[in-house]
Parts: sequence; C-alpha cells; structure tokens
Amino acid sequence: MPSPLRVVSFGLGPIGLAAARLALQKQSLQLVGAVDSDPAKVGKDLGELLALEQPTGLLVEADGAAALRRLQPDVMLHCTSSFLPAVQDQLRAAIQAGVDVVSSTEELLLPDLQQPQLAAELHAAALAAGVTVLGTGVNPGFAMDFLPLVASAVTLDVRAVKCVRVVDAATRRLPLQKKVGAGLSKGEFQKQLDGGRFGHIGMRESVALVARGLGLGVDRIEHTVEPVLAAEDHKTPFLTVKEGQVAGLRNHGYGYVGKLAVVHLDLSMYVGAPDPRDEIVLDSTPPLHLKFVGGIAGDEATAAILVNNLHGVVAAPPGLRTVLDVAPPRLCR
Amino acid sequence: MPSPLRVVSFGLGPIGLAAARLALQKQSLQLVGAVDSDPAKVGKDLGELLALEQPTGLLVEADGAAALRRLQPDVMLHCTSSFLPAVQDQLRAAIQAGVDVVSSTEELLLPDLQQPQLAAELHAAALAAGVTVLGTGVNPGFAMDFLPLVASAVTLDVRAVKCVRVVDAATRRLPLQKKVGAGLSKGEFQKQLDGGRFGHIGMRESVALVARGLGLGVDRIEHTVEPVLAAEDHKTPFLTVKEGQVAGLRNHGYGYVGKLAVVHLDLSMYVGAPDPRDEIVLDSTPPLHLKFVGGIAGDEATAAILVNNLHGVVAAPPGLRTVLDVAPPRLCR
Repeated sequence: MPSPLRVVSFGLGPIGLAAARLALQKQSLQLVGAVDSDPAKVGKDLGELLALEQPTGLLVEADGAAALRRLQPDVMLHCTSSFLPAVQDQLRAAIQAGVDVVSSTEELLLPDLQQPQLAAELHAAALAAGVTVLGTGVNPGFAMDFLPLVASAVTLDVRAVKCVRVVDAATRRLPLQKKVGAGLSKGEFQKQLDGGRFGHIGMRESVALVARGLGLGVDRIEHTVEPVLAAEDHKTPFLTVKEGQVAGLRNHGYGYVGKLAVVHLDLSMYVGAPDPRDEIVLDSTPPLHLKFVGGIAGDEATAAILVNNLHGVVAAPPGLRTVLDVAPPRLCR
Repeated sequence: MPSPLRVVSFGLGPIGLAAARLALQKQSLQLVGAVDSDPAKVGKDLGELLALEQPTGLLVEADGAAALRRLQPDVMLHCTSSFLPAVQDQLRAAIQAGVDVVSSTEELLLPDLQQPQLAAELHAAALAAGVTVLGTGVNPGFAMDFLPLVASAVTLDVRAVKCVRVVDAATRRLPLQKKVGAGLSKGEFQKQLDGGRFGHIGMRESVALVARGLGLGVDRIEHTVEPVLAAEDHKTPFLTVKEGQVAGLRNHGYGYVGKLAVVHLDLSMYVGAPDPRDEIVLDSTPPLHLKFVGGIAGDEATAAILVNNLHGVVAAPPGLRTVLDVAPPRLCR
C-alpha cells in the first residue's frame, strides 16, 4: 500500500471542517496541518473544532504560507473564499511551496472566465513549480457542469443542455438558509439583491464550462436571480418562513448563441422546495435524460468531492486545471 | 485550432462502421485509414461500406500492422473482438507503431482480471513505446461501472452498489437480438447457454472495476445468465418472438465480500422489455439514486463513446489504462 497523501486543511469554516473531518477518517490520507485566519480558532486543536473526543495533535495555525513551507504536504485542501482575487495569495503560497491544491473556490472552476490575467499568471507559476490547482465542488464542479459533460460522452452530437437542480433549503445548515434569503420580506430581499447580496456563485463558470466543453459556441452568458415566496408557513430547525415571505431563491444561468439559449441551468434553493432533485436533459443524438432522485445532498457531498479529488489532483499534470483535465473523481478510502 | 487527430479505423463490423462514420463527421478528427480482415470488405472504399454518396478515398486494407506503420496515425479506433487474446497481435501492432488505442474489446476494460500475464506484457510494451491503450464502451465502460464510480465522488462512504440496466432488444440491431437468443425455444437456449454461447461479455470486468475503484474488498465475482421468456408475441423489424419463446436474457454480476454481495449489476436485454433504463443505487453516505430515463441507447452510444475518447487517450499517460485513468470523456467536435 502506498504511503498516505500528506494533507493540510486551509480554511476551517463549515465546509472546510467537514472536509477535514472526512480526511481524518481516510486511510489513504494523513492530515498534517490545519490553517485558519480566525483568531477564535487559531491555537486550538482541530479535534476541539470538530468536537472529537480525542485531540488530533494538530493546532490551528494562522500563517498558511509558513505552515505549507514547514510541513511540505503533498496537497492542500482549500476552503476559504468563493472569489479568485481573495484567494490568490493563498494559492501563490501553495504554488511556491510546491503543494498541489484542491479548492472549493467557485471561481476556480474556470478561473480565466472572470479573471483571465490573474488566471494566466497563476497558471504560469503553477506550471513552473510543477503544481496542480483544481477548483471543484458539487455546484459548481459536479451537478450542473461535470455531469452533463460526462453524459455527453455517449452522444453523437449535443445541440442544447438543460439542468435543473432543486434543493430544499430546510434540509441544509443555517448559513445556507440565510444565503438564500429565507425568512426575508420581498422588499428586504429585493433591496439586498440590488446590493449584490444574493445569487449562486459559480453559475457563470458552470455555464461557460459546459459551453466550452461541448464546443457550443456560446457568445453570451446571463445569470438571473429571483425570490421564491412561501406558499405556506415553513419551520426549519433554525428559522421560520411565513406564507408570503421569501422562502429562498431561484437562479437561472443561460448560455446564448445569438438569441438562442443552448445552455440553461435552473437552480432553485428554498425552504420547502418539493421534489428535490438533480436533472440533466441533453438535446442530443441520442437524447439523454438523467435524474438524481432526491438530488445530491449539499454540504456532506461538497466535503466529499473535495476530499475525493485529492489523489487525482496529485496525479494530474501541473497548471491551473479544470474538472475536465483531472482523472474522474471517485470515493477514496 | 490544433490540427485534427489522425485516426485509423481497425475493425469494420456494425460498431466499427458506426464509429468510422462518426469520426468522418468530426472536425477535430481526420480518418486516414480503414482496416478489416473480411475479404468482402478489403479493397472497397469505406464510403461504399457506409453507403455514403461520395467515396472517402480510403480503401479498406487487410494488413493492419502495415497500415499503421505506413500511415503513422495518432490513434487507432479498434473494434474487432471482445477477447484480449484474440486482439493481442492487433494491439502489439499499434504499440510497435507508436499508435494510441481506443478499443471496444470488452476484456480491455480491466485487462489484468482474466489475462494478468498478457496484460502485464502489453502494459510493459505500451509503457516502453509511450503508447496508451484504453478499452471502453457503453457497457462495459460507462453505464454499469464508470457512472457508479463517478457518482461515488459525492459520497463520504459507499457500502454497496446496485446497477440495473434494462434494454428493449426490439429497438436494437438484428445481431444484438440474436446475441440475446430472441426467438429461440427454452430448450435451444439452454443448450446454447451450456455451450457458453450466451452472456454479456465484460460483466466480470465491470464488477471488478467497481469493486477495485471503490476499495470494496471483493473476494469473489459471479456471473449468471438466465433466459427471459416472452409473456406475449412480439414482432421486431427483424424477427418475431412468440409467447413462451425466449425474448432475451438477464445477466447478474455479483461481487462478494464473504457471503455478502456488495456489487450487484443486473442487466436485462430482451425483446419487449418494459421501462428501458439505466439505474444506479449507491448504499452510501449520503445515499444516491441515479436514473437515466429511457436508458442509454446502445449502438449509437457505443460508437459515440469510442470516438469521444480519442482525444483523451492521446493526452493520457502511456500504458494499458482504464476509464479511471483517462480524463473524463465528453462530446468531441
């Protein structure tokens, strides 16, 4: 049996902690460090943050670059921010230390889409250092981009792609319920929406990855966000949504060729959403209709796909890569 | 735009011809040669075999090794036999010519399962020559092995895998209908079954790939085949199945840990099969239930996935590889 991969967890919010917990359980992984900038976490044993019965012996460090230099892990499990500019120094630290990266940063799904210059710089640095950097997750990273692309493998041609993802936010953690605006009035929601507060991050990246991966010639991407109002009262473990209040939101991502939307990603996340599911319909030869009954669970699944990509990323060629460049992810032990 | 991949089609049976037809339509591929041992095909223009209106200028050659040496293609599209020993010389010819291979040979899905010594020899030769060899298809290669493995990427743990594939053989070509025994009496079927005539080739490979890919510790693989009798008369474009005759067959593939079947692949192919579908159920955390409504169409889809893997195989590291080692396949243009 090969030696376990040495992993540093960088970022210990809800997803980062879930991923660290999972990494601790894997025989093929050895968690050797934990990094977070939150003063309330720094210096604590990771086991305390995870409410484990035993300490892990890993004390949370604030200085990620120093930790990576000192520990020289094989790979960094990175869960800090959604935006590439905000994480660029963290990525540079990993690249300089020669450490591969699996990241939940949504914009890293397709980093050149919104940050072409920064992506080119990081790609060149990663190539020079022999480091692989991958952004992934359930969404973006799997449900509405990777899966329709993989499904296209059994088609002769694809003319259009439609994905529908329905998440019942009542089954998710409080931050997710707040993120979708559950419990707000319509007016409050609209005000915060106008301020850029709402909307699924990574939607444009998913549309663009599908469009590029299938060579659909998309020339314009659009992302819309609208509230979904509760038709009746709903109570979650964390909050109550009254009839007429905002239950959550619905995102549409479109990829257009001229006036024709050839990619349409339809993502609903609201408290009480019926028939939670992931559905992919390819207008293709032959036609394909794929459905995850009950949908792909959010938080656990996101932690899982990050951890399950660690081995693949270490084996992949260097550079800023996408989920289309790395060997297909699967459960690691 | 990069230059198109230069492709030689080796094997021009129904699947090979469908794949060659598709390759001719792809801008990113250039079909430069066609090989088949059938004297009825040798010397003919490929366009004639495909019933195209125009000749392709590619005359079918009998000597594959000579064609590969002379043409020096990037990759060979290989559709000849299901069994590794039968194709070993064809693979050696490609390896010696430095030509990557995408093959429909079912045993190549996991070549070391039934032919460990031959697989080791070919792997060493491929490594030395810098050649990549991949066996794939819809089944084996996608529906009952690759997809459950990819689905596992969003799980924390998998305890067992069940896949159900139901194909209505009435919608398929005559050779497939004959392959499943449609129209035979129960006695004839049993006699031919005892002679080893029936059964889905690649079932053991699919079970083993799933088991290995998920680290399920399977210690024994079983493959059973049974006839499905027609409950009423069925007429296909090619033949008639009368009530009580064999409509087709059902395969079960099992992977056991001790007495527990942790992998169960259930494949039905018969005339008149209701609710054709591909369904994957992971006994996992979180649980996953994936369904292709209507199923993945057989022959077109098989040609497609072979062609759609050509670019990935050329980019992959050398050696005898599996679908888990090569970048995820997707539609090529």
